[in-house]
Amino acid sequence: MDVYHYICFHQGFLGGGTMLQESSVDSSGSRFAPLVVLELASDTKEEAIAWLLSRIRDWQQNGGAELLVEQLGPGIGVEEKENPNMFLVGASMQRLLCGAEDLGLFKECTDGSMRAFTFASKHNFKDFKGDGDGFLSMAECQYVIKHELDTLRAKEETNVPGYSHAKLYPGKSIIRRLLSKGILIQMFPLHENEELKRLSFSWYKKVKVSLQPLDDIRHYYGEGQALYFGFLEYFTFALVPMALIGVPYYLFDWEDYDKYVVFAVFNLIWCTVILELWKRRSASLAYYWGTLCRKKAFEEPRPGFHGVLGHNPVTGRAEPIYPTSKRHLRVYLVSLPFVLLCLYLSLYIMMIYFQMEGWALSIYDENPTFWTHILLFIPSIIYAVVIEAMNLIYRYAAEFLTEWENHRLESSYQNHLVLKVLVFNFFNCFASLFYIAFVMQDMELLRQSLATLLITSQILNQFMEAFLPYWLQRRRNKKMIRKIQKRRLYEEKELPLVEQVRLEADMSTYLGTFDDYLELFLLFGYVSLFSCVFPLAAVLVVLNNITEVYSDAFKMCRVFKRPFADPAANIGVWQLAFEAMSVIAVVTNCALIGMSPQVRSYFPESETQLILCTVAAEHVLLGFKFILTFLIQDVPKHIQDKLARLEFESLEALKKKKMLEASQLSKTVQ
Amino acid sequence: MDVYHYICFHQGFLGGGTMLQESSVDSSGSRFAPLVVLELASDTKEEAIAWLLSRIRDWQQNGGAELLVEQLGPGIGVEEKENPNMFLVGASMQRLLCGAEDLGLFKECTDGSMRAFTFASKHNFKDFKGDGDGFLSMAECQYVIKHELDTLRAKEETNVPGYSHAKLYPGKSIIRRLLSKGILIQMFPLHENEELKRLSFSWYKKVKVSLQPLDDIRHYYGEGQALYFGFLEYFTFALVPMALIGVPYYLFDWEDYDKYVVFAVFNLIWCTVILELWKRRSASLAYYWGTLCRKKAFEEPRPGFHGVLGHNPVTGRAEPIYPTSKRHLRVYLVSLPFVLLCLYLSLYIMMIYFQMEGWALSIYDENPTFWTHILLFIPSIIYAVVIEAMNLIYRYAAEFLTEWENHRLESSYQNHLVLKVLVFNFFNCFASLFYIAFVMQDMELLRQSLATLLITSQILNQFMEAFLPYWLQRRRNKKMIRKIQKRRLYEEKELPLVEQVRLEADMSTYLGTFDDYLELFLLFGYVSLFSCVFPLAAVLVVLNNITEVYSDAFKMCRVFKRPFADPAANIGVWQLAFEAMSVIAVVTNCALIGMSPQVRSYFPESETQLILCTVAAEHVLLGFKFILTFLIQDVPKHIQDKLARLEFESLEALKKKKMLEASQLSKTVQ
Repeated sequence: MDVYHYICFHQGFLGGGTMLQESSVDSSGSRFAPLVVLELASDTKEEAIAWLLSRIRDWQQNGGAELLVEQLGPGIGVEEKENPNMFLVGASMQRLLCGAEDLGLFKECTDGSMRAFTFASKHNFKDFKGDGDGFLSMAECQYVIKHELDTLRAKEETNVPGYSHAKLYPGKSIIRRLLSKGILIQMFPLHENEELKRLSFSWYKKVKVSLQPLDDIRHYYGEGQALYFGFLEYFTFALVPMALIGVPYYLFDWEDYDKYVVFAVFNLIWCTVILELWKRRSASLAYYWGTLCRKKAFEEPRPGFHGVLGHNPVTGRAEPIYPTSKRHLRVYLVSLPFVLLCLYLSLYIMMIYFQMEGWALSIYDENPTFWTHILLFIPSIIYAVVIEAMNLIYRYAAEFLTEWENHRLESSYQNHLVLKVLVFNFFNCFASLFYIAFVMQDMELLRQSLATLLITSQILNQFMEAFLPYWLQRRRNKKMIRKIQKRRLYEEKELPLVEQVRLEADMSTYLGTFDDYLELFLLFGYVSLFSCVFPLAAVLVVLNNITEVYSDAFKMCRVFKRPFADPAANIGVWQLAFEAMSVIAVVTNCALIGMSPQVRSYFPESETQLILCTVAAEHVLLGFKFILTFLIQDVPKHIQDKLARLEFESLEALKKKKMLEASQLSKTVQ
Repeated sequence: MDVYHYICFHQGFLGGGTMLQESSVDSSGSRFAPLVVLELASDTKEEAIAWLLSRIRDWQQNGGAELLVEQLGPGIGVEEKENPNMFLVGASMQRLLCGAEDLGLFKECTDGSMRAFTFASKHNFKDFKGDGDGFLSMAECQYVIKHELDTLRAKEETNVPGYSHAKLYPGKSIIRRLLSKGILIQMFPLHENEELKRLSFSWYKKVKVSLQPLDDIRHYYGEGQALYFGFLEYFTFALVPMALIGVPYYLFDWEDYDKYVVFAVFNLIWCTVILELWKRRSASLAYYWGTLCRKKAFEEPRPGFHGVLGHNPVTGRAEPIYPTSKRHLRVYLVSLPFVLLCLYLSLYIMMIYFQMEGWALSIYDENPTFWTHILLFIPSIIYAVVIEAMNLIYRYAAEFLTEWENHRLESSYQNHLVLKVLVFNFFNCFASLFYIAFVMQDMELLRQSLATLLITSQILNQFMEAFLPYWLQRRRNKKMIRKIQKRRLYEEKELPLVEQVRLEADMSTYLGTFDDYLELFLLFGYVSLFSCVFPLAAVLVVLNNITEVYSDAFKMCRVFKRPFADPAANIGVWQLAFEAMSVIAVVTNCALIGMSPQVRSYFPESETQLILCTVAAEHVLLGFKFILTFLIQDVPKHIQDKLARLEFESLEALKKKKMLEASQLSKTVQ
């Protein structure tokens, strides 16, 4: 049995608001494992609660979600501050299986192929035993429940009972309206302590030389998370050859023309190859995780989306409509100028940094002591900190602006946000390096700045990302822990469910893989853009990635609430971002090689010829990169075959059905 | 009634080889309109014919095609040479409708949306009346029959009866084996004379200012053809702005820096925009023609594909297997070196041309008379003719090589062929222009050569493409025409079916849109690559395209056999080829502008700066092009909505079905 004590509930749960005391076991009662927690505002009106619960519990035919829901009882040391309106949501196994079928979840069959789960053919699926207990992972069950809650729609209600300002119309998602009006504070899935302990042990606690347990991560956190960790691992291994080749360049100070060019060309091709091979690996992972060929459900508007009530042209449902032209105006007339202004500001601060740098250098030249030598490093460190701070502030501004642009879909919101943040972070982090490389043309300073920036930003990141939230979290929970220790005197083993839920409700919310990917993206930039002047970058990034795996794993397991699974089939827009970076890297590396004195010495008489050769080499490399992208297939052959086989079988089945019908028809005609 | 006299056939056709005299009407007989002609070799053994006909006529449950088939009777003036083994194939309306369902043809519904046709919901479709007569166009019927014949598979037969070398195995397509062994000479769909007359009148006979009747073309020739003509029309209109802007540049000899650059930048952006907009137009057309969201059937191996008999990993059917590694070896170790050799040869011939040019010039300089002035043009004209001849010869070599590479799929064969021919033709046509532009840097000569090449190749093309085949065709058919004239004395109206079929069987076979697209591709190259030195190119191409429409229409209607419809959803690999050309155009135009004396005069002191500026401008333009490609959506919003709606409806229907089942299940449980 699970760590969660099964909670019983009344048979009469369909009737409406009958609530139970926690852990009371009714003799005739069925039991359910709580999967998801709904936290309503503590001052929510009773009638709204009763209405919501009845809608959640109602039969599907009546437009309900047909889920089990239960109020969380008070904690041990009942305090004033505790929110009484916490609800545990679960479902019967059959309901979960039907939900999985609705969602079109892909599971492995007994013959090893991946197929969309259907309740009728449940016994063809691997690991389906008895009534299906343990067939769906808890993350999948939670995803099913999230989907069912999200698609719980208003019927005839014009507003949430007791809240006349929380307007509803037929077809509006109830949960999204409650969220946007602040009545529903949060909805999150519960951790499984046993599972989590096992996962964290095999993931980061054990000193190991093995790979990450990707399948277990996927099992616990879902595909989006697992793909991120898979990418992190892949990226680290992919950089190892570059790191290995880079070390002798650094140690022996090889600066011959030939070796230099060979290293740079290897790097450029390697970057292209690893990005292409990642697509193949990602497709393999997604296939075996069942997300590669899953059909996406129709995307609902975001909770914050607003507009005049109209009709969606696709679903025909009532929905707010916001004209695209207005959104375009906001994007091009406000957001775009704002981003450009920020880029200008970033440029301005960069110039200040160079002035400080010059000033520190002049002080050191006047009076070269130990202290003034240290002063030399100060501007770089300050600049690195300022960059991080600017990135952080800009991030909030970007979120605000993207929210204000009023995108209908979450995916469109995410894309606009990623683009804004990406451009600024890229500019902010690399502008000074570009300036040093191409305006000052000081390779020694470039190498030094690159090292400073890389190391500072790594340390800052690791700190900001995992240890700061952890420390805040600990402080917040001190009280809870004290209370728990008191409890421990009586009962040694585990936290009771109530405490567990309240503990988790107070944990920080994990905001998705955005920041993690962004960090990898910038690291990739440090490695690829200037690889030929600082071959050690790959080594530093590999080292960073190894600690990153541990700190990310730690933060997922200990710092944050469990996130809902995200059935991603690939890393989405980040693939594009990394590819764009590798294109820019071709340009910068060619320019750097063209500027190196070794290459210049080959064209002593004419600079024009040097530049033309460099440009020609760049174009050839870009062309080669493009061809390589085409030649390497995105999906491995054996997966392509399996997908084709699935397609073929469904077509054949359809045909057979048709032929059967036709022959029956012809018989009746005869 | 149609131009084709309905032919009756025995009721007992299922029994096997009972053959009938042409046009004999059995009192109890059903009638059928012949759609497709099968021409077997004249010395085909009787047993093979009887077997083939019985397999075609057999019920679908027994693995037959369930089609109607009829031997064509002898012509009027029976001659020794006439092939007796010509067969007309048709089908009952219900069989055709079922076939259309199998193929997943999309048709317009009464509510204006496009849906996959199903026999069960036939009355929801627009224009479906009675038993469905006239619902499917003749091209669609012919495509259905082609598909049914292609998928007629061997059962237990080990070889074609009477031909021990024509091996068969269970699942092998019979028609493809007969084709590859030369027993089946050809299979082609019949023209409809009435329809054709109407189409050709509205298409090219009438002097008109209207657009082409694309829907009628699609109706008669299928989507692939119609998309080509749609693209030709679109391309012509898209070039009109460039032509209009180009004319004053040519007339007034504007050579200011600013105007020059403005024109070039406009051209580059315009090229990108028109290619992107074409994707939208193509998606619109394909949507209304029902090919945009049609699922492709599983692709069969090409008739010429050979290998050791094994099992296809997708279908599980017996099929020849040829290792991919062997094919790669052939591609990279034979075909690639061959192509490179041909490119070298083309370069060599180009150098000879320049020597001839220099020689002609020296003669003219020595003795400037009228005749030596004419001599100046001779090398260019000879070179243009040689280029065309080389393209033609290379084309045969490329076909041979690609055939020898032994591609499993027709699409893969086509892609490899297109790539080979494209690279060579591009090189062959443009190498001399590149040489003149960037090595000789003689803009006056470039302009002159461009004009000569463009005009010569246009004239040659029009001649080779339409009038030469037409003339050959006429010669070949003289005898037939004489015979027909003899016949006309008796019966004034129309050709009898037998003569018609034999006439069509002798017509040339249309080999697909390859050459037509290739021609447009090269024209696009002339317009875009050097647009800034010869603004008149667009005018010439527009004029050429207008005549091209007429000559292509003429050749489709009068010169060639009717081709089978090809349900294409886009112009395929050509879109990519045109986009690649527009990228190369950015590079060449930037270089040309950088080399112009007007621009050089802006950087009098430093050539380096000039080159750097040019390269920077090129990169900015390429980046802008890339962003533009992203910003312009490939499918118009209203089509996206309609596709999403279709998807959404099918998901909803599935969900409703599931819920119904679940409620029935819960009722039975209760």
